[in-house]
Amino acid sequence: MNSIGKLFCLTTFGESHGAAIGGVIDGMPAGVEVDMELLQQEMRRRRPGQSSLTTPRREDDAVEVLSGVFEGVTTGTPIGFIIRNNNQHSNDYDELRHIFRPSHADYTYAEKYGIRDHRGGGRSSARETACRVVAGAFAKMALKHHGIRIDAWTAQVGNIALEREVTEEMLANTESNAVRCPDAETADRMAALILDVKGEGDTVGGIVECRITGCPPGLGEPVFGKLHARLAEAMMSINAAKGFEYGDGFDMARRKGSEVNDVFVPNNGNDSNDNRIVRTLTNHSGGIQGGISNGEAIRFRVAFKPVATLLQPQPTTDSEGRSIMSKARGRHDPCVVPRAVPIVEAMAAIVMLDALLISRATRI
Amino acid sequence: MNSIGKLFCLTTFGESHGAAIGGVIDGMPAGVEVDMELLQQEMRRRRPGQSSLTTPRREDDAVEVLSGVFEGVTTGTPIGFIIRNNNQHSNDYDELRHIFRPSHADYTYAEKYGIRDHRGGGRSSARETACRVVAGAFAKMALKHHGIRIDAWTAQVGNIALEREVTEEMLANTESNAVRCPDAETADRMAALILDVKGEGDTVGGIVECRITGCPPGLGEPVFGKLHARLAEAMMSINAAKGFEYGDGFDMARRKGSEVNDVFVPNNGNDSNDNRIVRTLTNHSGGIQGGISNGEAIRFRVAFKPVATLLQPQPTTDSEGRSIMSKARGRHDPCVVPRAVPIVEAMAAIVMLDALLISRATRI
Amino acid sequence: MNSIGKLFCLTTFGESHGAAIGGVIDGMPAGVEVDMELLQQEMRRRRPGQSSLTTPRREDDAVEVLSGVFEGVTTGTPIGFIIRNNNQHSNDYDELRHIFRPSHADYTYAEKYGIRDHRGGGRSSARETACRVVAGAFAKMALKHHGIRIDAWTAQVGNIALEREVTEEMLANTESNAVRCPDAETADRMAALILDVKGEGDTVGGIVECRITGCPPGLGEPVFGKLHARLAEAMMSINAAKGFEYGDGFDMARRKGSEVNDVFVPNNGNDSNDNRIVRTLTNHSGGIQGGISNGEAIRFRVAFKPVATLLQPQPTTDSEGRSIMSKARGRHDPCVVPRAVPIVEAMAAIVMLDALLISRATRI
Amino acid sequence: MNSIGKLFCLTTFGESHGAAIGGVIDGMPAGVEVDMELLQQEMRRRRPGQSSLTTPRREDDAVEVLSGVFEGVTTGTPIGFIIRNNNQHSNDYDELRHIFRPSHADYTYAEKYGIRDHRGGGRSSARETACRVVAGAFAKMALKHHGIRIDAWTAQVGNIALEREVTEEMLANTESNAVRCPDAETADRMAALILDVKGEGDTVGGIVECRITGCPPGLGEPVFGKLHARLAEAMMSINAAKGFEYGDGFDMARRKGSEVNDVFVPNNGNDSNDNRIVRTLTNHSGGIQGGISNGEAIRFRVAFKPVATLLQPQPTTDSEGRSIMSKARGRHDPCVVPRAVPIVEAMAAIVMLDALLISRATRI
Repeated sequence: MNSIGKLFCLTTFGESHGAAIGGVIDGMPAGVEVDMELLQQEMRRRRPGQSSLTTPRREDDAVEVLSGVFEGVTTGTPIGFIIRNNNQHSNDYDELRHIFRPSHADYTYAEKYGIRDHRGGGRSSARETACRVVAGAFAKMALKHHGIRIDAWTAQVGNIALEREVTEEMLANTESNAVRCPDAETADRMAALILDVKGEGDTVGGIVECRITGCPPGLGEPVFGKLHARLAEAMMSINAAKGFEYGDGFDMARRKGSEVNDVFVPNNGNDSNDNRIVRTLTNHSGGIQGGISNGEAIRFRVAFKPVATLLQPQPTTDSEGRSIMSKARGRHDPCVVPRAVPIVEAMAAIVMLDALLISRATRI
Repeated sequence: MNSIGKLFCLTTFGESHGAAIGGVIDGMPAGVEVDMELLQQEMRRRRPGQSSLTTPRREDDAVEVLSGVFEGVTTGTPIGFIIRNNNQHSNDYDELRHIFRPSHADYTYAEKYGIRDHRGGGRSSARETACRVVAGAFAKMALKHHGIRIDAWTAQVGNIALEREVTEEMLANTESNAVRCPDAETADRMAALILDVKGEGDTVGGIVECRITGCPPGLGEPVFGKLHARLAEAMMSINAAKGFEYGDGFDMARRKGSEVNDVFVPNNGNDSNDNRIVRTLTNHSGGIQGGISNGEAIRFRVAFKPVATLLQPQPTTDSEGRSIMSKARGRHDPCVVPRAVPIVEAMAAIVMLDALLISRATRI
Repeated sequence: MNSIGKLFCLTTFGESHGAAIGGVIDGMPAGVEVDMELLQQEMRRRRPGQSSLTTPRREDDAVEVLSGVFEGVTTGTPIGFIIRNNNQHSNDYDELRHIFRPSHADYTYAEKYGIRDHRGGGRSSARETACRVVAGAFAKMALKHHGIRIDAWTAQVGNIALEREVTEEMLANTESNAVRCPDAETADRMAALILDVKGEGDTVGGIVECRITGCPPGLGEPVFGKLHARLAEAMMSINAAKGFEYGDGFDMARRKGSEVNDVFVPNNGNDSNDNRIVRTLTNHSGGIQGGISNGEAIRFRVAFKPVATLLQPQPTTDSEGRSIMSKARGRHDPCVVPRAVPIVEAMAAIVMLDALLISRATRI
Repeated sequence: MNSIGKLFCLTTFGESHGAAIGGVIDGMPAGVEVDMELLQQEMRRRRPGQSSLTTPRREDDAVEVLSGVFEGVTTGTPIGFIIRNNNQHSNDYDELRHIFRPSHADYTYAEKYGIRDHRGGGRSSARETACRVVAGAFAKMALKHHGIRIDAWTAQVGNIALEREVTEEMLANTESNAVRCPDAETADRMAALILDVKGEGDTVGGIVECRITGCPPGLGEPVFGKLHARLAEAMMSINAAKGFEYGDGFDMARRKGSEVNDVFVPNNGNDSNDNRIVRTLTNHSGGIQGGISNGEAIRFRVAFKPVATLLQPQPTTDSEGRSIMSKARGRHDPCVVPRAVPIVEAMAAIVMLDALLISRATRI
């Protein structure tokens, strides 16, 4: 329910306006030097209040690591951590105690549990994703030992899509703009759209794309633990995610086999880190075939809906079923996508490290 | 790895050209009268050789239920079953022992396991999905007790998409044509496309859409067991699946919050089976909010790539990394989508029954 | 690894001399009023420094509940909690950095992980059990709603065994003496033995017995989730546990079937809470038959070895394999059994609540 | 419920008088040559009808392996298998449809599921353990690659206990007598007791002891996946098991720390397969410290109750709660212990292989 992963397993807890959120990372391999700077950097990438494109809500997101690290190195025992909730304006939410906000989890939590912490969305708040970023940072530290690298970026905001192929060089630009789009010109247009929408008290959706390089062949466990099935599950567990595709994804539905089959060719051996005997000429498959990584770059995309909280009046009902008008107070993102980029990376890192560890059991 | 589900759990085994495929259904609730006719009907829907649109390969797919049923009623103990592999032409595959077919799992299985059963794709064959249909049929029997119904259909083949909204009445038509599209005219065009593509020795992709009705509010387990995350995982575990979306899905990336928020309204009480105090005016959310069902129809779509096996020559390599030309023999589908319809339903039924059983633990 | 339970699931973290220990309780049913007094009482029962029979080490064991409770009631979301490590004398352990203490986990942790936090046993410290007591207290709150009660007591210390049958009335005495033996006279003799042993700088083992009453028939999941298998797993996960038996246990190995079979008799209906149609005349089975509770009292026993830390010199080796003499400093228990009583209860409560929740999925 | 193991996972199905029993072994490492002779030998050891000490019931127990093996080598895909039920006398059980036999699972299954297959105990029959022996044989094949060996024997029948230390040489005798006691003289006395008891229409309990040698240090996953906790869970899941202890077990409850601590000494290096820097002088711990193997022999004992089915009249009730007399027909074991020996080994092998595979994830 609140855990993900089989050998590398994250469990999270916490409501947005409770004392703290936090989690336990179980199965972190022993012997990894902890890169606290990396952890802080990942937290800053997710944090609200980064720019005018994101909520002005400030969250310090100071991570307190409580266990599992000894003299700067992971010990193989579980890593417990908490993040205090300091800058919460719970009063902003008082009137929400009896309101079901449109397209929020208010109603479904009330139906399921019979009780809910209404303040700031409670458990359903995207604040929970901070815990995922913590675990993702640790996973990245371990993956780095194996040469596996994960990069995500904003590929679409509203109807503005990044049309260019993203090259290795372009990736360096992702963090240079507030939208996290690796193409500066597209980033500008995306930012303008977000500010427009924000001005209307409205919100807008978008797409995050992710690429995993350096992944050896052999990760993923058919038939139900296919690597892309695990990625799909992980991505769809992120707040506001509505769709997942890998490789050519939905576009493949329109294509013929002769157009999208990835032909194998002998590996020329130019890359000394790549000792595969073959590689594929194209990568429509997205680096995964039959649920198992083939050594090509893994690529996938995650669609996010527009944030449900609008700064304009909306009709809805209260918990007695009476029609009312609702208008949000509080501080909210006009577009979740720029802050979703590090979350997508974090979930990808969690899935990949788990797959890597599981794959060690494959052969005698 | 080869299991899915927490309380209602399917484990499958078997290679396409081994002695048999089969599985174990663990957690089937006791006291369900077994509807063998439903089981056989579901198997027929998935079976090859149904029409000129599918592979002429014949598979009897006779399911032998070995346990868990006593005097026609489920006993709550595991249901073991096998399906013998009778009509296999293993010789068709002899030359594949040392070939990596493009966009198949040949290469990745070889890399992962160091050994593979090359006959007919071995474990990676779509024949494995017959076991999912068995488990799905049992799940449907249980879901029927709770008024939950699952209907899937072909929504797109190549560039031919079903444009009409699918009504309750139209669903009756799904099984009346070989494509499994509930609109007869669209079905005809889809069938013509598949036959064209088949004539070229090529294949084509498509999309299956699924709708779940009668689902009570409260199913799904945040934050990692969100109902749509479980559905995504299950659907992406189906052979050839490349994408998943629920509700308005990827389209939501282009939209504003004010366009796609689902406003709550008082429930008029016209449906005596629906005692919710509110309902939503629209259903962009696809019946799931915050990972929990809200009582509206659950809808999602799964994209399938074109079948990788072409009846035309393709360049590829052998297991020594030497370039060769490959041309399939054997009997293959030009389009997987019509036969994927019952598989999508089966996986949805497995997920929904599991979610239903888990939800019973929610409250004291 | 660091989680136990399927639907009611505890995950713990923390080293004895790190910043804090803690855990996450996932699957706590919603709607339970939180009894903080019960929680504190259970913590006091486990805490060191209770009497001259236990270590003088003081641990405040103040539990900080961080989530999952709203306005005094459980919400169904995970309960995160931490217990700060305040009163640690880490310097007592400096010389242990390179020593493998006899019958401790020093050597095995070093071999397994290649790194270990040597201070106070690190992760292997019995301090971790404080987290189990927290989860056990929450489980007890839920079990109380269903009339299930758990009582454990000290049944043996060294060669002094409680010979009398423990009646309902005697249970009230358990907490009235430092040994937690429900018979005052036996308790006195046990206490004297512990003090003797302590005077020698030595330690002594013992047995905890546990009885669960009010359990309905039907809990437990054959064939691998048998109720006693789950209890065995849980009990054997407690530090220093060496054996588990239920019902007549090891004594049954010496007996004939005609001596220990439990004959069924009609239920006389004297107990209005017990609507079973039959009951058993005797209870050699210990309340579980075929892995499923039968409605009789569940009883089991757990053997604990003497604490490995002695306040007398012992030969051992350092991490280079050199022979040395070791003598403990620090503050240690001469007998773990009195403090193990609440831990056994806590683990039993965790198992029973999990079994109760799982059993709800049994029938359609 | 019907699965055990995390990476090496066995799922079983089947009732004793249904069409077949069987199972799925998931996670068998690829590349193991399958030793069918070993498999058959293990099945013969468990099979009824071996000698006058066991039930005259004949079960052919012919194992049909359906998948996961290709050209004599494991492929890493799941191994499905079935064992047909051929020699069942279901009519022997007709009158049991409405009877709750004393100390059987009849009543608890009826209470839990509301329906049960009464023939031969149905799912609760010990026939299910044949599937465990199949999985255990495969696990042994894998463990052999790593030099891990598992030997169990009958250590006690009724009040006749094997008093001698069991040496390596004695183990060769285990299979030379029907009781499976490695000491011939004790075996004779045990056999005589079993025949006596059988003559009375009665049954008798006993103890199986098991020793695992060649296990490297580092297996086992604290704090809930301790190696002995996993062993306890697995052993207690065997039919008729009532107790588990490892190392000095329950005897340790009576001892002082100074008597049972295992002192570390430098490893003399006489065994070239043992590159540990230290070893222990004694092995009261039973090869496991802090839940992790230390490289010494792992030893544990399992207590079994006398078989509940007596060939003499016993009072009991029917399913309406009416008192009746019951007398078994059918063919039953007077003592389960000799046939439990290979089952204990099988469960130990399953646990050890799983632990071995999991331990590969420990370090970066």
